Amino acid sequence: MTQHFKHIGLFGKHSHPGVSDTLHQLLRFLKARELAVTVETETASAMTRCDAPTCSREHLGSQCDVIIVVGGDGSLLNAARAITHQQIPVLGINRGRLGFLTDIRPNELENKVGEVLDGHYLEEKRFLLDGQVFRDDKLLAEGNALNDIVLYQGDVARMIEFELAINGEFVYSQRSDGLIISTPTGSTAYSLSGGGPILHPELDAVVLVPMFPHTLTSRPIVINGNDKIEIIIAADKETYPRLSFDGQQHVNLAPNDRIVISKFPKQLRLIHPKDYRYYETLRSKLHWGTKLLATHTE
Amino acid sequence: MTQHFKHIGLFGKHSHPGVSDTLHQLLRFLKARELAVTVETETASAMTRCDAPTCSREHLGSQCDVIIVVGGDGSLLNAARAITHQQIPVLGINRGRLGFLTDIRPNELENKVGEVLDGHYLEEKRFLLDGQVFRDDKLLAEGNALNDIVLYQGDVARMIEFELAINGEFVYSQRSDGLIISTPTGSTAYSLSGGGPILHPELDAVVLVPMFPHTLTSRPIVINGNDKIEIIIAADKETYPRLSFDGQQHVNLAPNDRIVISKFPKQLRLIHPKDYRYYETLRSKLHWGTKLLATHTE
Amino acid sequence: MTQHFKHIGLFGKHSHPGVSDTLHQLLRFLKARELAVTVETETASAMTRCDAPTCSREHLGSQCDVIIVVGGDGSLLNAARAITHQQIPVLGINRGRLGFLTDIRPNELENKVGEVLDGHYLEEKRFLLDGQVFRDDKLLAEGNALNDIVLYQGDVARMIEFELAINGEFVYSQRSDGLIISTPTGSTAYSLSGGGPILHPELDAVVLVPMFPHTLTSRPIVINGNDKIEIIIAADKETYPRLSFDGQQHVNLAPNDRIVISKFPKQLRLIHPKDYRYYETLRSKLHWGTKLLATHTE
Amino acid sequence: MTQHFKHIGLFGKHSHPGVSDTLHQLLRFLKARELAVTVETETASAMTRCDAPTCSREHLGSQCDVIIVVGGDGSLLNAARAITHQQIPVLGINRGRLGFLTDIRPNELENKVGEVLDGHYLEEKRFLLDGQVFRDDKLLAEGNALNDIVLYQGDVARMIEFELAINGEFVYSQRSDGLIISTPTGSTAYSLSGGGPILHPELDAVVLVPMFPHTLTSRPIVINGNDKIEIIIAADKETYPRLSFDGQQHVNLAPNDRIVISKFPKQLRLIHPKDYRYYETLRSKLHWGTKLLATHTE
Repeated sequence: MTQHFKHIGLFGKHSHPGVSDTLHQLLRFLKARELAVTVETETASAMTRCDAPTCSREHLGSQCDVIIVVGGDGSLLNAARAITHQQIPVLGINRGRLGFLTDIRPNELENKVGEVLDGHYLEEKRFLLDGQVFRDDKLLAEGNALNDIVLYQGDVARMIEFELAINGEFVYSQRSDGLIISTPTGSTAYSLSGGGPILHPELDAVVLVPMFPHTLTSRPIVINGNDKIEIIIAADKETYPRLSFDGQQHVNLAPNDRIVISKFPKQLRLIHPKDYRYYETLRSKLHWGTKLLATHTE
Repeated sequence: MTQHFKHIGLFGKHSHPGVSDTLHQLLRFLKARELAVTVETETASAMTRCDAPTCSREHLGSQCDVIIVVGGDGSLLNAARAITHQQIPVLGINRGRLGFLTDIRPNELENKVGEVLDGHYLEEKRFLLDGQVFRDDKLLAEGNALNDIVLYQGDVARMIEFELAINGEFVYSQRSDGLIISTPTGSTAYSLSGGGPILHPELDAVVLVPMFPHTLTSRPIVINGNDKIEIIIAADKETYPRLSFDGQQHVNLAPNDRIVISKFPKQLRLIHPKDYRYYETLRSKLHWGTKLLATHTE
Repeated sequence: MTQHFKHIGLFGKHSHPGVSDTLHQLLRFLKARELAVTVETETASAMTRCDAPTCSREHLGSQCDVIIVVGGDGSLLNAARAITHQQIPVLGINRGRLGFLTDIRPNELENKVGEVLDGHYLEEKRFLLDGQVFRDDKLLAEGNALNDIVLYQGDVARMIEFELAINGEFVYSQRSDGLIISTPTGSTAYSLSGGGPILHPELDAVVLVPMFPHTLTSRPIVINGNDKIEIIIAADKETYPRLSFDGQQHVNLAPNDRIVISKFPKQLRLIHPKDYRYYETLRSKLHWGTKLLATHTE
Repeated sequence: MTQHFKHIGLFGKHSHPGVSDTLHQLLRFLKARELAVTVETETASAMTRCDAPTCSREHLGSQCDVIIVVGGDGSLLNAARAITHQQIPVLGINRGRLGFLTDIRPNELENKVGEVLDGHYLEEKRFLLDGQVFRDDKLLAEGNALNDIVLYQGDVARMIEFELAINGEFVYSQRSDGLIISTPTGSTAYSLSGGGPILHPELDAVVLVPMFPHTLTSRPIVINGNDKIEIIIAADKETYPRLSFDGQQHVNLAPNDRIVISKFPKQLRLIHPKDYRYYETLRSKLHWGTKLLATHTE
């Protein structure tokens, strides 16, 4: 059961060349269709002249029935964390280098967006992670992430030492450069470059990828999406690592801090054109079509 | 809700030093408890003198209410494929090198087995894969696997070329040495040495690990446990790969053969002593307790 | 100091579509330049009509002062092993999928080959490995390889067990699917897909890459090109692995066989057009120009 | 040709439990042998009571004919960078977790050190890297490293973008978390946890290991030890990475900075007891003796 969208919210990466052009093109196209359009305030200020009404990122969700993000996957991550609370569907138009999430190209904008607005689209649920940082048992910071929460070294490049528990069961104490906790959505991003597996987006699972672990047998572990992950930073007074949410928000940590990561209760509604195929995106982004190696036997 | 077991089936690896001793020890222990015991025929013939009734592997399940396997994980894999149809619980006693599945050591046999027989145990469900090979649309062979189904080069060491589809959607055509399709149970066996992730045993997922892929960006993919996997061997007349089930049964393949892999409808009931902890087994088998690398900064 | 070549030997992959066309084009081009041309016998028989004199692969080297190979890297490997004894320079024209060794494309054939014949070329020395198999201290078989010598499972897919020594010092006993022993030339072929590093072709080194090792901490080791490598197949009577040379020649092994691998005394003289750059080839073959991953932070 | 050592310099990790005890034990042992001993100033101040003459780290080399380092590999790295200029041999006694470089255990101290002092030892040459940082063509900083020089993200966790050239030839522009440039000595340290190969210590080679590269086909490259490596930080004004020497000294970098890395002209003279075997150390440190994986076929 799909919707016909009437009120469109626009969200774009500020200061990215080309984004402003695409936003204007989109605005003209939506107005020609006599649809209501609201532009996120900062997005509007980055456009050369924007004659549409604007509103803040926080209120965009309550006014619109779909959000279109123009930019790269990073822009969509950014929008997703703000929008997920209101469960508004999101559609991405790719202006960045690559797009696992933003899968409409500017040159097919009118066709594809037109189709989606007419109710011809696929909707996927993508879950986010919620991360809480506790210091002395008090909540210090909280954030969520569509791709990944990453524990990493702060400004001093020192190995981190921490303990990991899953659902209250001790898993290991690890010395490493950090730990990537990734959703299926994030499994094709940072986690992949760290040696993690690709998780199909419909999988209810989370992957933990150790970064440069001291112990060579430390390997990526895939666990249930509903598992509760706890990390305790070692009491060593010289380690002040950080925690990042989608690589966009950062929290400074201290020894003994406790991080609790679990599934965020609300899911992102991600919209794709009708002809979207996940494996086709993988093939295209990872150049699977091309044979890369020197032939061995030929 | 646990059971009290009354009739125990014994199954052991033939010709493994030490297995016969452990079987005799077990037999004495079970008789002292006045329990009914039936020994699998081939197992009995490998024991120096076996005075218990025997029956074939196929009928063991219908006579007993629990099977105890003495050997390594390989022996348990072997038993599991025979027993799964009858859904009899299985307990493993480790005589081999390592045991992710067989987690009782001979020296703790009486304590641990005693506890289990008294109903103090944990029961896990582990799913198996079912693999069917079709030639010209006719079913040529079928098998199942608790660990993994592996497509690999046959006697000529040539790169294999095949196409992969999941739920009817084309994923890729690949040139490689083969493909490992592993359950969570198998994820700590062959798949792990091929670079696959560890999947928690309760995860309803399957991992596909390309073996020495020609394309460097081919990476392990984790998909839903209920997905239907199809592999079509390329029409190249020189490729005659093989398919193995748990590395124990083998099928010769030919060009154009179609392999269909999906979850086997019945699950293995795997029994552990009450103090079994999955992550503890991982830590112990993978030496996570030990720091293996030279300290970088120290 | 470069040569002007007067007598050209032609060598091509039999039965590869397009190779015959390129050979004819090359023949016309060389005749127009009034150069002597001899075609390898099997190559000639695969050409639709070949009016040039022919000779066997073994004698080609003694008659010509340069060999041009038309095909893929596999064809050049094939030629290289035959020609190395005579130290005739070799030039490759790429008709296969990829070419680390055959770096002239058919469409630039006349320009590039013309330049090379005029003495405008780069010459590289590439070393080969020599592998000897001893059974009961008698030499059973011998071969050489420009890319790699690979110990692998034979027709039964069983883990191999063997011992490795370098310069007489015991290194490890390993259980795995096999071992790749690769030259720098082969480091971008099979070895790379097995997780081996890229070795610059001028490096006097050999890399040993374990295949699916049982022990997760078994990693590629790079040793001196002059080191003597010895492998002893375990005495287990069920293991009959094989040894391959460039994936093109195969030797059946038996328990207790001893394999001795060392540098072959003569080197291949590999010729490139003047504008050849190694790192450019790498960039192009491995798609380094392209960004493959989803942006993390953007 | 070995030396008999007369004047021993002592160097230890300050504040490491156990180091002080071992230093005192060593001091008593050396005095009983009537040898001259000088203790490095900071080391002496960390000992509970040190009645031997002391001198600064910089002058230790000019007074002594051998330096004994007590600590872990980190302490030896620290000493090595100070001592290499004077080419004094160094012997390591391991008090840390692991020791590829410090291979005498405290409990065998008297035997092994005694042997070495009597001239029964092996001497290895280990080369160091020299790294220079240029800003606007002026030398900003310089350092050397026995293990590795690492380009990494500074306090903001952002992907770094840089260009790499070897011997003046462009290799690639890379987006990643950084780059490890490791000697053979460092190949078993940080580089190994980043997926780099093990390089035999006598190899005249350097390995470049990309850290979490954006491009999945970026792989470790092994080049000649005499190659000149140049890295240019991208002109993007938001990237301020860092450079570390053995993880112990750090330089802040800015956009457009140029880093030149080449072999340091003087080599470390590393001393081992007579029975030292490199592959034995590898086997022991990497647990190669132990089979870590679940048996596949058994």
